[in-house]
Amino acid sequence: MDELAKLPGIGPKTAQRLTFYLLRVPVEEALPLAHAIVEVKETMRFCARCFNLTEQELCAVCRDPRRDQQVICVVEEPSDILSIERTHEYRGLYHVLGGALSPLDGIGPEKIHLQELFERVEAEPVKEIIVATNPNLMGEATALYIAEQLTKQVASGRLRVTRPAAGLPMGADLEYADEVTLGRALSGRRDL
Amino acid sequence: MDELAKLPGIGPKTAQRLTFYLLRVPVEEALPLAHAIVEVKETMRFCARCFNLTEQELCAVCRDPRRDQQVICVVEEPSDILSIERTHEYRGLYHVLGGALSPLDGIGPEKIHLQELFERVEAEPVKEIIVATNPNLMGEATALYIAEQLTKQVASGRLRVTRPAAGLPMGADLEYADEVTLGRALSGRRDL
Repeated sequence: MDELAKLPGIGPKTAQRLTFYLLRVPVEEALPLAHAIVEVKETMRFCARCFNLTEQELCAVCRDPRRDQQVICVVEEPSDILSIERTHEYRGLYHVLGGALSPLDGIGPEKIHLQELFERVEAEPVKEIIVATNPNLMGEATALYIAEQLTKQVASGRLRVTRPAAGLPMGADLEYADEVTLGRALSGRRDL
Repeated sequence: MDELAKLPGIGPKTAQRLTFYLLRVPVEEALPLAHAIVEVKETMRFCARCFNLTEQELCAVCRDPRRDQQVICVVEEPSDILSIERTHEYRGLYHVLGGALSPLDGIGPEKIHLQELFERVEAEPVKEIIVATNPNLMGEATALYIAEQLTKQVASGRLRVTRPAAGLPMGADLEYADEVTLGRALSGRRDL
């Protein structure tokens, strides 16, 4: 029960419910979970190139020759890659930072995979970096830092640094939109 | 109690609570509400030009000579104007449709203030129409209809028809963004 309660989003009551479930089911239904946990910890590691999760040296995206090698989408966490893949809108590569800059929490540029990103920009035929860090304070600061560093590092014109549009989410209601989002949606308006 | 329960978002329990509140307070605290309701119904009407709410012939926005007369922002409801004004990002005029196209509910182009919009485009020195209908199915269809009609009506080049950006709202998390929103944010990305 104590071990289950350590999981995020699982409080003492849920942990108790899950524990009794595991006690109740036959051993052949409970053991696969234990094996899966052992296996995932033994076999999962980070992609040597983009820090995505993988069971091999390179992740599935980096191994796929049909992916556009000239675009890198920078995200905070491997889970963000799943979200973006689900859109079927993106055919380039990724780079997982493993977090966002947060000076107050002691997370400076050296604590996340920024150096590795700048090295990839040097070594690979990259034409566009899409900085898809989260649209919150830390993610925005990280995006600006990356754009600044890349402008210093790369001769202008060779590399485009972009950011996904900020605006109204689908199904939203103008009446309940927050001011910052609505303001950005207006200033970033597009021709119909 | 029955009259209060007719208000949107007020169920029978809240109606009961409010009724007993009105019974408890002195008459001079309860009557202003009654007077305000009578007054608002007597004095409030729609702006003759943009269908915003107003107590005069023209609304406060239309009367303000400092507003940019060359931009009209099209919204579904007068409450949307309040949301947009709060952003302090917009200095042009408005046009309230009074709803969105919804053929299934029998709301065709003649049921909302579309004709009046097209007449304004003819009569006023408009250079841009920002179609800020809600980013849902009906709002999107209405925006496309307006763009199509205006393209037919106006010589191309004289009028820009735009739409606020669709994308990730501020403070969002990529991991929990829906696919359509994230896909649009990616396809609508901007240079940093």
